[in-house]
Amino acid sequence: MVKVDLNSDIGESFGRYTLGMDDKIIPLVSSCNIACGYHAADPMVMKKTVQMAKDAGIAIGAHPGFPDLMGFGRRNMVVTPEEGAAYVTYQIGALDAFAKSIGMKMQHVKPHGALYNMAGKDYDLALAIAKAIQAYNPELICLALAGSQSVKAARDIGLPVAQEVFADRAYMPDGSLVPRSRPDSMVTDEELAIERVVRMVKEHKVTAVDGQDIEIIPDSICVHGDGVKALAFVSRIRSRLEAEGVTIAPIWDVIK
Amino acid sequence: MVKVDLNSDIGESFGRYTLGMDDKIIPLVSSCNIACGYHAADPMVMKKTVQMAKDAGIAIGAHPGFPDLMGFGRRNMVVTPEEGAAYVTYQIGALDAFAKSIGMKMQHVKPHGALYNMAGKDYDLALAIAKAIQAYNPELICLALAGSQSVKAARDIGLPVAQEVFADRAYMPDGSLVPRSRPDSMVTDEELAIERVVRMVKEHKVTAVDGQDIEIIPDSICVHGDGVKALAFVSRIRSRLEAEGVTIAPIWDVIK
Amino acid sequence: MVKVDLNSDIGESFGRYTLGMDDKIIPLVSSCNIACGYHAADPMVMKKTVQMAKDAGIAIGAHPGFPDLMGFGRRNMVVTPEEGAAYVTYQIGALDAFAKSIGMKMQHVKPHGALYNMAGKDYDLALAIAKAIQAYNPELICLALAGSQSVKAARDIGLPVAQEVFADRAYMPDGSLVPRSRPDSMVTDEELAIERVVRMVKEHKVTAVDGQDIEIIPDSICVHGDGVKALAFVSRIRSRLEAEGVTIAPIWDVIK
Amino acid sequence: MVKVDLNSDIGESFGRYTLGMDDKIIPLVSSCNIACGYHAADPMVMKKTVQMAKDAGIAIGAHPGFPDLMGFGRRNMVVTPEEGAAYVTYQIGALDAFAKSIGMKMQHVKPHGALYNMAGKDYDLALAIAKAIQAYNPELICLALAGSQSVKAARDIGLPVAQEVFADRAYMPDGSLVPRSRPDSMVTDEELAIERVVRMVKEHKVTAVDGQDIEIIPDSICVHGDGVKALAFVSRIRSRLEAEGVTIAPIWDVIK
Repeated sequence: MVKVDLNSDIGESFGRYTLGMDDKIIPLVSSCNIACGYHAADPMVMKKTVQMAKDAGIAIGAHPGFPDLMGFGRRNMVVTPEEGAAYVTYQIGALDAFAKSIGMKMQHVKPHGALYNMAGKDYDLALAIAKAIQAYNPELICLALAGSQSVKAARDIGLPVAQEVFADRAYMPDGSLVPRSRPDSMVTDEELAIERVVRMVKEHKVTAVDGQDIEIIPDSICVHGDGVKALAFVSRIRSRLEAEGVTIAPIWDVIK
Repeated sequence: MVKVDLNSDIGESFGRYTLGMDDKIIPLVSSCNIACGYHAADPMVMKKTVQMAKDAGIAIGAHPGFPDLMGFGRRNMVVTPEEGAAYVTYQIGALDAFAKSIGMKMQHVKPHGALYNMAGKDYDLALAIAKAIQAYNPELICLALAGSQSVKAARDIGLPVAQEVFADRAYMPDGSLVPRSRPDSMVTDEELAIERVVRMVKEHKVTAVDGQDIEIIPDSICVHGDGVKALAFVSRIRSRLEAEGVTIAPIWDVIK
Repeated sequence: MVKVDLNSDIGESFGRYTLGMDDKIIPLVSSCNIACGYHAADPMVMKKTVQMAKDAGIAIGAHPGFPDLMGFGRRNMVVTPEEGAAYVTYQIGALDAFAKSIGMKMQHVKPHGALYNMAGKDYDLALAIAKAIQAYNPELICLALAGSQSVKAARDIGLPVAQEVFADRAYMPDGSLVPRSRPDSMVTDEELAIERVVRMVKEHKVTAVDGQDIEIIPDSICVHGDGVKALAFVSRIRSRLEAEGVTIAPIWDVIK
Repeated sequence: MVKVDLNSDIGESFGRYTLGMDDKIIPLVSSCNIACGYHAADPMVMKKTVQMAKDAGIAIGAHPGFPDLMGFGRRNMVVTPEEGAAYVTYQIGALDAFAKSIGMKMQHVKPHGALYNMAGKDYDLALAIAKAIQAYNPELICLALAGSQSVKAARDIGLPVAQEVFADRAYMPDGSLVPRSRPDSMVTDEELAIERVVRMVKEHKVTAVDGQDIEIIPDSICVHGDGVKALAFVSRIRSRLEAEGVTIAPIWDVIK
């Protein structure tokens, strides 16, 4: 049976500020990545978000980011691998505390934003983060960009890893994402995006920007819940995958 | 055999800033309270501090405070019990992550500064914090001001609790600390302070400011490592207690 | 000619987070209070907000708050008067920098949230803040709760002051606001609220909760732009005042 | 008469944390760069520091940095030129508020750490910062790395600029600093360092790492007050310069 996970970032509100439509996206995904207080979220938001995920029966993961609330963790910061790893340890422990407190187990860790992107390209940083996750709990799954240095680093130390793909992003011939600075970085045609997802899931193939087919293993598809249009798109992806006989399942079930 | 714990706050450095003489105070105490990134410390400091405590063989506890780095967590903030509890959950999880990552178990939780003082007087806040600790790990010991609402709340829900006394503070007839705003709040005579500690430990009695003897149960004595003079005082307390046949032992051993 | 100012808090977004409907409330008021980066706002938001106010031709003021982004500056913090004053100096300078940079003059300062409430009741804190404002620029107007310690302190040192009233709040016989903890703290009937505003502006009288009329001087009315309903209410207040022959004018024009 | 400025970073303490020996370095320099609350300092520290500088009769400048207290502003952050400029505007206004409040004029602006380094190499960022300084106050002097993009950008818009040199750093043939990653980046021989400073000041020449002499215009020499050894070195530089007939004077006097 073909399975794939749908994951979304949630729990990104902070204090007086509300972000995202968590109650709407949660029913559509099988796993969620919860902000941990550095780039977004505060303890009250985290507590509430973990409870929402539990109530909905979806798997949870920590979504640690840079200590840059002002930039929402999206700005590259030149940290040492040891610093990046310590920030991950801190944040996964903080999130896990809310999970443990209601008898819930954390399934995975997916670094956020700039930390995700930097680790994807920098093996030393990726390795330090993978080791930090493993030292905390060797059963945690590292959710990482398909084909990235993060996948390689996790595998090298025997940390469970799941490969993430994006429905709305174009790929380079080497399997990396087309940089956002390029005009052809996004797949804007929704119909095409869905076809690509189906093919990735069923055939493990995607057409790169140069027209050639490349191999890709999609354990999990990243989707967004930050607007009515985004939510409708997730619904369509989900319906289509189910119509194709694909089972939407949490990461642990997909990679087992 | 009479036993008592000596505890000290450590790990209060932050980024480029160094505070305290952790390497000097650690060998003198049996338990330490490690800052968790809100009122002091950052992930790199926490990682290093937990390792230092492990190397020295002393017990560790989380020292969660208010999100007020500028005020070092010493300023009262009007939070709801639920907020205070969520801040504690967040911080104990963050610290525990560093402990777990090197195979160490966290022994206790001692709220810091204004959070400690406020919980000591506010049963609702104390109860919310005690429940947060218990939900995370029911074996964690709550280290709280002797005779305070925090002790009462922990007992009411069956959370292990250890009572803390201060060598250099005067007591009210009801067992509370004489407010720092009063001129007679401190015991400045070191010789007298040590005599008082010995009597608290051996006889469970201390003379209050009005001259009457009151009962007090000192499971742990709070000491400071923030200067050469403070360190010398800790050495004297320790030597004197040992000379009196008192064993310095971590909290779990004292209250078992 | 009877004049009154309408003021609203704006510029409370932060990084990725949007708050308020600034573009909708700005055309309805004559003065605005702009967040300064402590309880809300960041430099990019402040720059944009000052420009919006300039484009709309309304007067601007600094809206300094506690360093508590997580609590939106609404939680009392026990600071010394000197600390509170230094926080005000810091924030009014930061906001003024954006104003000066586009050739705009700052009209007033209105402390935010808990700082506003605490200063309103604590003469020492109010005095320290008033002195801080005066030391920076003696022409700045302190916008303060009518009848509060902040008004008294500003007057005592000769700092220009404008008294603020609330359309939707009930008053105690001594002119203070009915605490929010009481069920009768709010004036929920919009029609009644508007009648009360008109009477405050034209007769300098308002009926307190005990039924007696008290004197009140409304230089400025605080209104809110955080929702469609709030905006409609502001429109109604504005229209009614204008129908009554009252001119909506910025604070400096009202108190000159 | 040959003149040169000696400048040092001061006011880097924060809350409970003390950094540097401000009272010792202040008497040795003619200008100081005061931290503005982003990478270091808080409003209480800024207030005190500005007063110390006034009492000592030295010129002050703002020392704005990245919003990265944890990294002390020393880590590169990928910000847009507009963000970098807004952070500068915010911080120079905040510092200027303390200066204005005691009747003192700000002389210059020197970006801190990673912001200084990044602007030195990135013309767009340097230009945005220069424009931000000029928009706030066109008389402010931009203190920038000699020969850097920051000097060029300031000149291009007519902002006064002073060139900064380092006594303890080696120079590349193109006038840039030898990167710290290279083993030959520092001039560790104090005697040699002082000779180099004297030659830079008197002859406008320095020997680059490849042995050739290059031209350099030292309006200001950066010195450090973070230790007993550093302070002694500053004393020696100062004495030697005075013995050579060089006058130590604030930047405005050097470049007028």
